Amino acid sequence: MTDPLRLGIAGLGTVGVGTVKIIRQKANLLAARAGRPIQITAVSARTKDKDRGVNLSDYAWENDPVALAQRDDVDVFVELMGGSEGAAKDATEAAINAGKDVVTANKALLAHHGHELALSAEAAGRVIRFEAAVAGGIPVIKALSEGLAGNDITRVMGVMNGTCNYILTRMQSAGLPYAEVFEEANQLGYLEADPTLDVGGIDAGHKLSLLAAIAFGTQVNFDAVELEGIEKITIQDIHHAADMGYRIKLLGVCQMTGRGLEQRMSPCLVPDNSPLGQLEGGTNMCVLEGDNVEQIVLRGPGAGMGPTASAVMGDVMDIARGFRMPVFGRPAAELECAKPARAVMPAPYYLRLGLEDKPGTLAKVAAVLGEAGVSIDRMRQYQHDDSTAPVLIVTHKTTRAALDSALETMSRLDVMTAEPVALRIESV
Amino acid sequence: MTDPLRLGIAGLGTVGVGTVKIIRQKANLLAARAGRPIQITAVSARTKDKDRGVNLSDYAWENDPVALAQRDDVDVFVELMGGSEGAAKDATEAAINAGKDVVTANKALLAHHGHELALSAEAAGRVIRFEAAVAGGIPVIKALSEGLAGNDITRVMGVMNGTCNYILTRMQSAGLPYAEVFEEANQLGYLEADPTLDVGGIDAGHKLSLLAAIAFGTQVNFDAVELEGIEKITIQDIHHAADMGYRIKLLGVCQMTGRGLEQRMSPCLVPDNSPLGQLEGGTNMCVLEGDNVEQIVLRGPGAGMGPTASAVMGDVMDIARGFRMPVFGRPAAELECAKPARAVMPAPYYLRLGLEDKPGTLAKVAAVLGEAGVSIDRMRQYQHDDSTAPVLIVTHKTTRAALDSALETMSRLDVMTAEPVALRIESV
Repeated sequence: MTDPLRLGIAGLGTVGVGTVKIIRQKANLLAARAGRPIQITAVSARTKDKDRGVNLSDYAWENDPVALAQRDDVDVFVELMGGSEGAAKDATEAAINAGKDVVTANKALLAHHGHELALSAEAAGRVIRFEAAVAGGIPVIKALSEGLAGNDITRVMGVMNGTCNYILTRMQSAGLPYAEVFEEANQLGYLEADPTLDVGGIDAGHKLSLLAAIAFGTQVNFDAVELEGIEKITIQDIHHAADMGYRIKLLGVCQMTGRGLEQRMSPCLVPDNSPLGQLEGGTNMCVLEGDNVEQIVLRGPGAGMGPTASAVMGDVMDIARGFRMPVFGRPAAELECAKPARAVMPAPYYLRLGLEDKPGTLAKVAAVLGEAGVSIDRMRQYQHDDSTAPVLIVTHKTTRAALDSALETMSRLDVMTAEPVALRIESV
Repeated sequence: MTDPLRLGIAGLGTVGVGTVKIIRQKANLLAARAGRPIQITAVSARTKDKDRGVNLSDYAWENDPVALAQRDDVDVFVELMGGSEGAAKDATEAAINAGKDVVTANKALLAHHGHELALSAEAAGRVIRFEAAVAGGIPVIKALSEGLAGNDITRVMGVMNGTCNYILTRMQSAGLPYAEVFEEANQLGYLEADPTLDVGGIDAGHKLSLLAAIAFGTQVNFDAVELEGIEKITIQDIHHAADMGYRIKLLGVCQMTGRGLEQRMSPCLVPDNSPLGQLEGGTNMCVLEGDNVEQIVLRGPGAGMGPTASAVMGDVMDIARGFRMPVFGRPAAELECAKPARAVMPAPYYLRLGLEDKPGTLAKVAAVLGEAGVSIDRMRQYQHDDSTAPVLIVTHKTTRAALDSALETMSRLDVMTAEPVALRIESV
């Protein structure tokens, strides 16, 4: 197999341009490693006439990514447009129907349509690879689906949205409130056009749903991911957590339980001396746990031209070398449709309550928790200036169901002046 | 390709038994992931009659691993015996000559004979995979040779001997001297029969030489690894380093420089708040740096039945899936024979000197350093009870050559009461 591998690249934003650059700059190295040349034959993007800092004149231009995907001189369709619907979906389907392999960085597309795309790709004998869709430059898809293929995966965790981690660590280091750091991140261009994708946990949830499918042999089910964003995290939460030896992270966790597949993307407390707790800024981290390997931790840049293009090229090189496997590690037709489960495993929780500053309110709240079977490990009431008394409670291990029932009862007590915040303390 | 993949396993120690267990316990999972059954057809070990806690009666027994390697009903020879010469080498060569693929955990074999074995395997169209030979359960070979295949690798670092890291972190946490912790590790069975393999840095050096070959496209050259063990590290060194915000680690570093390939395995100081600095106990860590991916850090168990067998199975599954590539990531016949270079990049160094407690000695030492162009960042003389004055110096960035020249001159000064210790402060 020494024929060139011919790529059609759709999307010439940061990642697309980064990929073109690598292929232009490292032709000899890539050919030596793959055993065959890697070539770009055609590209497409929304605007043709734009200086992208890279010479595209050697490649055919297509205005329509679907036409690109169907070209006879394209072996691999490299989808770097983004978006779960529209052009990215149409062109990916067209590529599969035209008998092309696909490399994509599009987590939204796969989170929403991954199972159907995998079924049709596998029926057509094609592969879809998506290392760049999860955790940027970290080769986590490869580690999970190939390196740990001899394990029953027991749990996968990850901090996989660099923007959220930037916001949370910056709040802590600079002592600034959420709104201010959010605005700062916006100015720096860190946020998606729709910032809910970042701070609402959606982008990271997309990634988690892909890891869960590989880890547990289940159909991608993004709709079943329990999503909580970081918008409600206050600088006080961060300080309180730090006082107790924790950091707050937007943490994805998935595990298979007796009651079904748990997929959560939510702010959690993790010990400040753990690898997850020590993760600063925009860096990503994935924690893979298996019955044999115990725990593997992977850390690296979650975004950016070089790292993401590096992940795209890892997939391209695998295809060039002839590595072929089912999209999610085993045939899509055999993937189970897992029953979704809410947080099943008991854990301690951090609760922030705003109570009316009147005699007896704290006792009422404590009684409600006790009746729901939630026992209190630590409780503090903080000094305050207004009529709301901020109360922090760390519970002993409890189920989320018991906690939710207590919070529900509390909300009817008429002593709460603010929506309570409950954050899981995850054992890492 | 749905025929079973048939394994012959040579060596039934911890890793061999762990591998047999995984294949027995996960037959369905492995077959679903590989698209074909994974079977063991034959095994061999030194002693047949021994309870290994696993049922071996389904497999043919061979006393001679060479005979095992040549069996018609073996597709993949799994070499888990260890040792760079003798049976492991003979059987691996026999397997290649008989047209078998090879999976091995044997770092010594590959460090000494990897290039020749790769040449003959590739001439015969066979693969050799060795994930388990480096950093236990961490899929670092895969990350480096596949995941980062779109990068020029700029530097690879690693803490890859769990025993040494256990000894160094235990000295620090318990405040115990080297000899005592060494004895403790010995009692716990952490040390090789020849402990120099561990504490002399040889085992970790073997691993580093394999990573260097993949990273830089060069022939494995273990003899060119600059080796320094941890035997000379005192509890004082550890305390002094901690005072300055550093930890001492047996750190492997390889990088290609203008003067040749640098491969070093030696105790180094790293910042205590870096991932490497925070690595405790027997855990391993590899740091991979590439021009596009920036930096990827991988952390996991460096030894043990489950983790090492997990790595063996990753390789077996790759072969079952039909993944085939050159042993060191590009054809062995094309690998360059790199010129070895000593530590080329300037760095600050930590120096511990024992000086005669007489007026003027410190001035003499400082003068020697100055003449060699080595400038002093910090210097301390510690309280002492005997006639030797312990002096610590942290230099500004200097070349190893300038430092060695200064140390050479000092040794002729007649004021040194002990062999000086020089540890590089590595920027991580």
